[in-house]
Amino acid sequence: MLESNVRSYSRAYPRVFDRAIGAEIWDNNGARYLDFLAGCGALNYGHNNPFLKESLIEYISRNGIALGLDLTTIAKDQFLEALNEYVFKPNQLDYVVQFTGPTGTNAIEAAFKLARKVTGRTNIVSFTNGFHGVSMGALAATGNAYHRGAAGLPLGGVTSLPYDNYLGRSINTMDYFQQLLEDKSSGLDTPAAVVVETVQGEGGLNTASATWLKQLQMICKKWDILLIIDDIQAGCGRTGTFLSFEKYNLKPDIVTLSKSISGYGLPMSIVLLNRSIDQWKPAEHNGTFRGNNHAFVTAAAALNQYWRTPELSLEIDRKAALLTQWCDQKLFQYSEQLIAQRGRGLMRGLVCASPATAARISKIAFENGLIIERSGAEDEVIKFLMPLTI
Amino acid sequence: MLESNVRSYSRAYPRVFDRAIGAEIWDNNGARYLDFLAGCGALNYGHNNPFLKESLIEYISRNGIALGLDLTTIAKDQFLEALNEYVFKPNQLDYVVQFTGPTGTNAIEAAFKLARKVTGRTNIVSFTNGFHGVSMGALAATGNAYHRGAAGLPLGGVTSLPYDNYLGRSINTMDYFQQLLEDKSSGLDTPAAVVVETVQGEGGLNTASATWLKQLQMICKKWDILLIIDDIQAGCGRTGTFLSFEKYNLKPDIVTLSKSISGYGLPMSIVLLNRSIDQWKPAEHNGTFRGNNHAFVTAAAALNQYWRTPELSLEIDRKAALLTQWCDQKLFQYSEQLIAQRGRGLMRGLVCASPATAARISKIAFENGLIIERSGAEDEVIKFLMPLTI
Amino acid sequence: MLESNVRSYSRAYPRVFDRAIGAEIWDNNGARYLDFLAGCGALNYGHNNPFLKESLIEYISRNGIALGLDLTTIAKDQFLEALNEYVFKPNQLDYVVQFTGPTGTNAIEAAFKLARKVTGRTNIVSFTNGFHGVSMGALAATGNAYHRGAAGLPLGGVTSLPYDNYLGRSINTMDYFQQLLEDKSSGLDTPAAVVVETVQGEGGLNTASATWLKQLQMICKKWDILLIIDDIQAGCGRTGTFLSFEKYNLKPDIVTLSKSISGYGLPMSIVLLNRSIDQWKPAEHNGTFRGNNHAFVTAAAALNQYWRTPELSLEIDRKAALLTQWCDQKLFQYSEQLIAQRGRGLMRGLVCASPATAARISKIAFENGLIIERSGAEDEVIKFLMPLTI
Amino acid sequence: MLESNVRSYSRAYPRVFDRAIGAEIWDNNGARYLDFLAGCGALNYGHNNPFLKESLIEYISRNGIALGLDLTTIAKDQFLEALNEYVFKPNQLDYVVQFTGPTGTNAIEAAFKLARKVTGRTNIVSFTNGFHGVSMGALAATGNAYHRGAAGLPLGGVTSLPYDNYLGRSINTMDYFQQLLEDKSSGLDTPAAVVVETVQGEGGLNTASATWLKQLQMICKKWDILLIIDDIQAGCGRTGTFLSFEKYNLKPDIVTLSKSISGYGLPMSIVLLNRSIDQWKPAEHNGTFRGNNHAFVTAAAALNQYWRTPELSLEIDRKAALLTQWCDQKLFQYSEQLIAQRGRGLMRGLVCASPATAARISKIAFENGLIIERSGAEDEVIKFLMPLTI
Repeated sequence: MLESNVRSYSRAYPRVFDRAIGAEIWDNNGARYLDFLAGCGALNYGHNNPFLKESLIEYISRNGIALGLDLTTIAKDQFLEALNEYVFKPNQLDYVVQFTGPTGTNAIEAAFKLARKVTGRTNIVSFTNGFHGVSMGALAATGNAYHRGAAGLPLGGVTSLPYDNYLGRSINTMDYFQQLLEDKSSGLDTPAAVVVETVQGEGGLNTASATWLKQLQMICKKWDILLIIDDIQAGCGRTGTFLSFEKYNLKPDIVTLSKSISGYGLPMSIVLLNRSIDQWKPAEHNGTFRGNNHAFVTAAAALNQYWRTPELSLEIDRKAALLTQWCDQKLFQYSEQLIAQRGRGLMRGLVCASPATAARISKIAFENGLIIERSGAEDEVIKFLMPLTI
Repeated sequence: MLESNVRSYSRAYPRVFDRAIGAEIWDNNGARYLDFLAGCGALNYGHNNPFLKESLIEYISRNGIALGLDLTTIAKDQFLEALNEYVFKPNQLDYVVQFTGPTGTNAIEAAFKLARKVTGRTNIVSFTNGFHGVSMGALAATGNAYHRGAAGLPLGGVTSLPYDNYLGRSINTMDYFQQLLEDKSSGLDTPAAVVVETVQGEGGLNTASATWLKQLQMICKKWDILLIIDDIQAGCGRTGTFLSFEKYNLKPDIVTLSKSISGYGLPMSIVLLNRSIDQWKPAEHNGTFRGNNHAFVTAAAALNQYWRTPELSLEIDRKAALLTQWCDQKLFQYSEQLIAQRGRGLMRGLVCASPATAARISKIAFENGLIIERSGAEDEVIKFLMPLTI
Repeated sequence: MLESNVRSYSRAYPRVFDRAIGAEIWDNNGARYLDFLAGCGALNYGHNNPFLKESLIEYISRNGIALGLDLTTIAKDQFLEALNEYVFKPNQLDYVVQFTGPTGTNAIEAAFKLARKVTGRTNIVSFTNGFHGVSMGALAATGNAYHRGAAGLPLGGVTSLPYDNYLGRSINTMDYFQQLLEDKSSGLDTPAAVVVETVQGEGGLNTASATWLKQLQMICKKWDILLIIDDIQAGCGRTGTFLSFEKYNLKPDIVTLSKSISGYGLPMSIVLLNRSIDQWKPAEHNGTFRGNNHAFVTAAAALNQYWRTPELSLEIDRKAALLTQWCDQKLFQYSEQLIAQRGRGLMRGLVCASPATAARISKIAFENGLIIERSGAEDEVIKFLMPLTI
Repeated sequence: MLESNVRSYSRAYPRVFDRAIGAEIWDNNGARYLDFLAGCGALNYGHNNPFLKESLIEYISRNGIALGLDLTTIAKDQFLEALNEYVFKPNQLDYVVQFTGPTGTNAIEAAFKLARKVTGRTNIVSFTNGFHGVSMGALAATGNAYHRGAAGLPLGGVTSLPYDNYLGRSINTMDYFQQLLEDKSSGLDTPAAVVVETVQGEGGLNTASATWLKQLQMICKKWDILLIIDDIQAGCGRTGTFLSFEKYNLKPDIVTLSKSISGYGLPMSIVLLNRSIDQWKPAEHNGTFRGNNHAFVTAAAALNQYWRTPELSLEIDRKAALLTQWCDQKLFQYSEQLIAQRGRGLMRGLVCASPATAARISKIAFENGLIIERSGAEDEVIKFLMPLTI
C-alpha cells in the first residue's frame, strides 16, 4: 500500500522479517531462514556480528558522533589506521582513502570523475556483464539492459568490451582491447580508465584470470590509462583475501569498496586512490552522509577482529574447497540441469541449464528455509553469498 | 596521511571530534563547540537525540535486522505507518514511498529516471543556484560551477532557468518559463519534469514565493510536466512544517527526502511518488543499502516523537521569529557588512557584503566555539542550520 | 512515387518548375511566377544572373576543374582575392577562409568544433528562435522544436538564451547573460562561443540591435568567449552591406557564410576565422565537396560585379525604404490582420495576427503568381526574400 | 595567406591547378598529371566528362533552374526516372529518394535520424575503420581518432564493433555482434541501425565478404534493426555494379549515395529509403542546397550514358582484373615493402609494410606526374581511385 512497485526481493520472499544473527534470519512469525544472500554481499561477517555489535552499542551509548560529514573523528581515524595496518601495509599499497556518499554507485561515480579529471580524457572502458551501479555515471558502465533501459537518457562516455573468456577460451579478449588501442581508426576513444571486477557478482560469477588481469594492467600502464578495480562485491574477504586481487600482484590506481566494508551492513563506501593521482580539490565530490561514523566503528572492529591474523582467510579457503567438492561430487550428479560452477572463494555460482531451473531452485530453497538468489544476464546462475563466518 | 585531498570541513575545523549531544559537540581534548552546521541539515533533532538513541540501542540489542535490502521488515513497516499517519494523511497526499540508495543524490537520480520514463521526454528543468547532488544525473541539475567542473564530462539533459527573483523583483521569471514553453522555436525541449527547492540551502538561502510555486505547479499541469520538489534540505521540519510546502497548497508529483529523514544522522533517502505515476518495474532502480533499518528505526521514532503533535512546529516558528528579530534589531546595526537575511523557518541566511566577510565571521565564530558554515554561489551567506530542538 | 515524404515546398507549390531568370520562374506549362523566396536567400542576385552565367559557361567550356577537393585552383584563388579586396580590406578584417562541405550546417559544425578546440570548453550559447542547421552539432543550436524533435537523440552542448527583446523592450536580455556568467552557481557552463544571427531569417525576422550586439561582443571579450556571427541568411548583401554587421563595428571571431555566397545558387559554404584562432590541423574537418569550383567561379564573379562599387548597397537601401513605406502606408491600412513589420534591408517580415492569416496570404499570392514563404515559430510571418537585383 | 590551416591536399600537391579532362589534370604552368585520386571517388566518369558537360552547358544556357530547394523540377524528375529505370528496377528495390544537403555527411545524418525515429531506439552500430563523415552525428560513427579528436565534445550514440576479419580470418566477428545482442547484460544497447561500408574507402580498402554481410542482414531482420549501407564511396559503379552490393542479394533498408552520384563532381547526396520506413514528416530534415539541379542534370546524363547497358560494368571488371594481375605479377616482386592488395573492382588498396613507404610512393609518384593518395588508419595503404572510364 505504501511502498513503490520498484521493490523486488520482498516479492520473492514475501515475509515480514525481524531479527537476524549470523547466517540466520527470522520473520515476524518466528520462522527461521538460512540467509545465503546476506545483504547481497554486504554481510560477510553475518548479521549482527557480536564483536561488531558490541563496539557499536558501546559507541552509541557514549554519544559518539553519528554523522560527522567529513570532519576528522576518532572513529574515522581508528578505521583508517586499521585499514592501513591490515590491508595497505601487507600489500605495499600507497593509497589514500576518499570517503564518498555511502553507496557503491557513489564510489564509482567518484572514481570515474577523478579518472577523467586526472587524464583529461572522457571515455571509460567497462566489460560485458559488469555491474557498477545505477546512478547515471555508473549506469553507463553497467551492462544489464534492464537497468540501462530505466535510464531515460542514452548512456554515454563508456565503451563495453568483452570480459575474459567472453568469446570462448581460445580467444584472448585482452588482445582485442590492445588492437583497438593500437589501431588509430578503431573507433575506440583512448579511455581515461578501465573499470573491472575480478569476479562479476551480478554478471553471473564470471572470473577474470590472473594472466588476463596482468595483461590489462600492462596495457593500462603502456597507454597511461588508469586501472580501477571495482571490489565492491568481491572485496572485503569474499574471495579469500581482503582485496580480491592480493594474490595477483596488481596495483590498481583506484579501488572501490562498499557493501561489507562496514561489516555490519551499515552504508559505507570508500575509494582507494594511489597517492600520486589524488588530484581532488576540497569538496569537489561531496555528500552529506560520507561521514557515517557508526559504520566506521564497525568497519574498524571488523578489520581488527578478522584481518589481524590469517585465520579468516584460511577458513574461507577451507569452506570454498568444501563447496567446490560438494558441487563436483554431489550436485552435478544429481541433475543434468546443473551445468557448471563458477567463481572464486565464497563467491560462487551454480550455472543452471535454464533460467527456469534456477528460479525453481531458488523458490524451493525458500520453501525449505534457505534464502538464495540468482544472478547472470538471465538470472540463470544460483549465487552463493553466505556469510564468510558461517 | 591517509585521507584524500577531497576532504573539506576538516580543513576549516581542524580538530579531532569525538562525542556530541543535541547542539553540542566535543573534540578529543574535551573542548566544546556549538554546532550550527548540524550535519548540513541532517541533524534536525540534534546529535544523539535521546529518544531516538534509546530506540536504536534497543533495536540493535535485540538483533533487529540492520541491512534488509528491500525486504519487508518490521522496522520499515513502522516507519511507513508513521509517515502515512503524521505526514501523508494530514496533508491529503496519496503517495507511495521508494527507498533508494541512502543518499540525497540517489533519490534525485531515481526521481529523474522515473520522470523521464513516465513522460517519455528527456529534459529536466532546474533553477539557478539549485543544488541536487553530485552523481552524474543529479549533477546536471546542480548549478554550482565548482561541482560541475569536476564532472569530467559535459553535463546534459537539464535546462537551468532563473529562480524566483533571480532577475529582480519586477520580473516574474515563471512567465519566462511559460513563454519558452509556448514558443515552439525557443530551443527549450519540453521537459519531463521541473525540480525545485522551496528554499535553496546550498544556493544561498534564496526562497521561492508561494505565488511563484503555485504558478509553477499550474504550468506543470498544463504542459503535463512532473513537478519534483527536492525537500532534502528544506524538508523534515526545517522550515516549520514537515514538508516545506505544506502551507502552499502544492501537490508535487514527486518529493525527495533525505538528510534529516532518519533523524539521527544515519544515511537514508526516500522518494515520495504520486501513486498514479509509480510506473517502476521491480528493481529497475536498486542499490544494496536501500534497506538501512537502523535509519528506519530512528526515522519512525522521530516521527512519533516530534510530529504527532504541533508542538515542534510551533517551537520552530517561535525560534525563527526570535532569530529574525535578533538579526533585524541587533545584527544589522552592528555592521554594514551584514546586508540582509534570507530563508524561512530555521533555514536562515545572513547575507554578507563580501565572501571575505562571511569567511571571517565563520572563522571567528569557530575560535569562539561556534561551528557555522557558509553557502551561496561565492560562499557569501552565513547559514544557520542549528538543530530545531536547540 | 519516387521521392520521400520529407519534401515540403513541392507540396505548397505543386508545379513542375523548369526555367528561371532573375526574379521570374516558369513551370513546365509556361506559367510564370514571381519568386520572393529565391532559394531561401540563396539567390540574392536572381536566378541565372547573366554576369555569373557567362563566367560559369566560359569556365565549364574550357574544362576548368569542377571538383578540386581542397587543392589550390585558379578559381579558388580568384574568389579569395575578390573576397579579400571587396570584403575583408574595406572592413579591416584579418580573416582566413575555411572551405567546408558546401552547406550552411557544415559551416556551423566546423565553427563549433573550432571554438571548442580553441577554448577547451564545450558549451555553446545560442538564442531563442535561432536557426543554424539540422545536422546534429548545428541542430543543438537551432531553436525549432519540429526540427529538434527529429534528432532522435537528446541534443546537448548548447544553452539557449533569450534573443534581443525576447522578454519585451524593458528587459535587456544581454544583462541576463552577463548575470549568468558572473554567478558561479547559475548552472551556465561558461561557453566556448556564442552563435548569433543579426537578423533571424527562419525565426521570424527578429533583429538584434547594434547596442545589444556590441554588449554581446564586450561580454565575449571579457570572458574569453568566441563570437560567431551566423551570416548564412543575413549575409551576402541581404541587409544592405555584404556582411550584415558592417555598420555595427563588430569584429566577430568567426563568421559563417553560405546560401548566396556563390551567387548562382550553387552549393558553397565558408567559415571566416580570425587569423589568431586558426588552430586547425590539416584535414581535421574535411569533406569531398569543399572544393566546388563552379561555385568559386560564380562567387568571384558576383563579388567583382556587385561589390566593387557601392551601387548595389545603395540600391538595396532604396528598395528597403520603398518596402517599408509601402507596408506602413498601404499594407497596414488594408487589414488588421497585418500587425507589424520586422527585419532589416531586404530581409523583411510581415507579422500576421495568426498563422492562418499568413498561410492564407501565401496561398492566395501563389494563386496570383507570387511565391512568398512564411517563417517564425508558428509560420506566422510573411518573409520577403526577393532577389536584391529585382 | 587567405586560407585556413585546415587545408590538406594542397600541401601534398603544392600546385595551382586549372583544367582537367578525364583522368588528366593540368596546373597553371601547363604541367600535366594523371589523377588517380579523382575527387576522392567523386569523379568516377572522369573530369569534365564530355557527355555530362554537354548536358550541363545546354541546361545552363537555356536558363534551367540552378537551385530549386525541394521544388519539383524537370531536372529532378529526369534524374529520378533514370535512377528508377537503371538502378531500382533491375535490382527489384522499392525505394524512395530523399534529397539531403549535398554532402555525404548530411546523407548519413539524415539516415541516422530516420533510423532512430522509426525504431524509437538511439544506438547505432558502426564498424572499426569505418568513415561516415565529420558533422557531429556522422562523426560519432567514424572510427578515425584524428577526426574524432576534433569534435570538441564526447561522441555518443554509436557503438563501434569489429569489421569483417578484424580479429583474423578464424574469428567471425558477426558472431560476436550476435552474442552481444543475445546477452541481456552485454552493455550493448540494441541499436536502431547498423551502418556499414561494403568496402572501406578511408579505412584502408578492407572488404566485407558476402557471407558476413548476409549474416548481418539476417541479424538485422531478426532484431528489427535497420541496415544502412553507406555506398558513398563504394557506390556509383566503383566496385563494378552501380550499387556495391548488387551481387550479394542484400536489401538494405537505407542506402546513402554521394560523391559520384552527380557524375561531374557537383555536390549532391541522396538517401534511398525502403518505402515502408519513409516516416519523415515534411521538412523534418531540410537544407537549402538539397535541390542542386545542375547536379541532377549531370546525374541523369551519367545514368543514361553509362548504366543503360552493361558495358561500363564489364569494362570495370576487365580493368580490375588487369590491376590485380599487374599487382600480383609485377608489383609484389618489385619490393618486399608491398605486402598485399585489398578491395574490389576499381577500389583498390596496395598495402605497404609501413606508412613511410606509402608516403614515399605517393611522393615519388607525384614527382613523376601521378596523383595517388593513401588511406587506412595510419595512411599505410596506397589507394587506387582512378576514373572508371580511364
